[in-house]
Amino acid sequence: MDGTSRLLIMGGAAGPDLLGRFVELSGGAAARIVVIATASEAPATAEQVYLQRFSEHGAGTVRALRLSCRAEANGPAAGAVLREATGVFFTGGDQERITGVLGGTAVDSLLHELVGAGRVVLAGTSAGAAMMAGTMIVGGDRPGVTADSVRTGPGLEFLPCVLIDQHFAERGRLNRLLSAVARYPHELGVGIDEDTAILTGGDSFEVLGSGAVTVVDAGAATDIRVPPAGPIVLAGARVHVLPAGCTFHLTGRRPVTGPPSPERERAT
Amino acid sequence: MDGTSRLLIMGGAAGPDLLGRFVELSGGAAARIVVIATASEAPATAEQVYLQRFSEHGAGTVRALRLSCRAEANGPAAGAVLREATGVFFTGGDQERITGVLGGTAVDSLLHELVGAGRVVLAGTSAGAAMMAGTMIVGGDRPGVTADSVRTGPGLEFLPCVLIDQHFAERGRLNRLLSAVARYPHELGVGIDEDTAILTGGDSFEVLGSGAVTVVDAGAATDIRVPPAGPIVLAGARVHVLPAGCTFHLTGRRPVTGPPSPERERAT
Repeated sequence: MDGTSRLLIMGGAAGPDLLGRFVELSGGAAARIVVIATASEAPATAEQVYLQRFSEHGAGTVRALRLSCRAEANGPAAGAVLREATGVFFTGGDQERITGVLGGTAVDSLLHELVGAGRVVLAGTSAGAAMMAGTMIVGGDRPGVTADSVRTGPGLEFLPCVLIDQHFAERGRLNRLLSAVARYPHELGVGIDEDTAILTGGDSFEVLGSGAVTVVDAGAATDIRVPPAGPIVLAGARVHVLPAGCTFHLTGRRPVTGPPSPERERAT
Repeated sequence: MDGTSRLLIMGGAAGPDLLGRFVELSGGAAARIVVIATASEAPATAEQVYLQRFSEHGAGTVRALRLSCRAEANGPAAGAVLREATGVFFTGGDQERITGVLGGTAVDSLLHELVGAGRVVLAGTSAGAAMMAGTMIVGGDRPGVTADSVRTGPGLEFLPCVLIDQHFAERGRLNRLLSAVARYPHELGVGIDEDTAILTGGDSFEVLGSGAVTVVDAGAATDIRVPPAGPIVLAGARVHVLPAGCTFHLTGRRPVTGPPSPERERAT
């Protein structure tokens, strides 16, 4: 999978295994990691947390890139920092701050170029994960599967044709993901649990971490009706619950589940 | 659908439309309704609530049948009351109190006989809904899809081969239903929202009420692995989200969705 985009998309609350994996993918002792905390209301604190963690995991160099406004994201200083990086990490917070500050800027273009060329591993957690998709969920936690139980907006499209939701099992968000894919059945719904991630490579992703990734595919649905208010009809959607080791083919919309390990046998 | 079992299975917090529908199905002004509050910790209060509501909806007669112990459920008095009934309603509470007090008693057998003959419409809400299935969920609200995120037990099997969960959207229970059907893929998972119900007739059910019914079918899954601990693999399951007016065929495991009405058009 060399030469293709590597995205490490984490569902929030990433533990040492995932953070260590990011350092390793970025080059380990040779890694030059850049932390961008634009999503956070307290960027200095968020930067400090991840600078320390990535250093503890043995990254060669780690630095923060503070991008608080579009002028900074269009300025020459940011580009110089990013061109040196082997890994870029987006913290959590509010995904609309990322798209609002970075969307369409020189940093946005440069990141796509560097990631597409395989020169940078792009990682993000929570809001930093949501913004990577073609469409991101920006709000909505009403129960039920209804048009107004989810609000979406365009993401930065590092991973197009996918709609990412995070803190997935922990916040019981399957209904809101079902609502989103019922409205946009061309988008594959990918719900990522906390301390869990997908790592893309080529046209597929692998699941990493302690939880699971839930893929909801409304492309297979035989009947979808979305009234402006009230419950949605969604018949025949597919759902896949995939823990660590499982692989999913994106264009084929099918899981390629991993080999069973001894502790993965069916319970009796 | 005359002569077949009519079960009206409500997901909790049933509003006037559903309660009125039960009275109507039981015969309206000619209805003789029996309320059983065995699931409740405060049966007198629960009885009073439903006696009043069914009277307000114009039921001919409404009475409570207090069954607090197995001796009462095996005694002759209960049978005499039930033989006069056209509708029997089970309140919410703890579903294991229903199976513990009624399971295998004369009341249990008689109810199956009366319901099977089409002489009684059997309704229940929340715990009174859960107990009707072949397998009922008795606990588990841990996030994630894991073997230990759900506990199940045998229900009274008025509706075999089905596993019912209630307060479904309101309590974000899709993950626990996925966990249950991954363990028992022969059981069809049926999650019922509050103020929502399924009405069975023949080999299908219709959805009633203001929310939706979510059917999870692991029969279609291509790969299921359930480790004793940690996340489950469940690839290729089907999910159907069905609001009022939709019909689902049980043995065929397929939705027969209702006709689109004007307000059911796709949102733009």
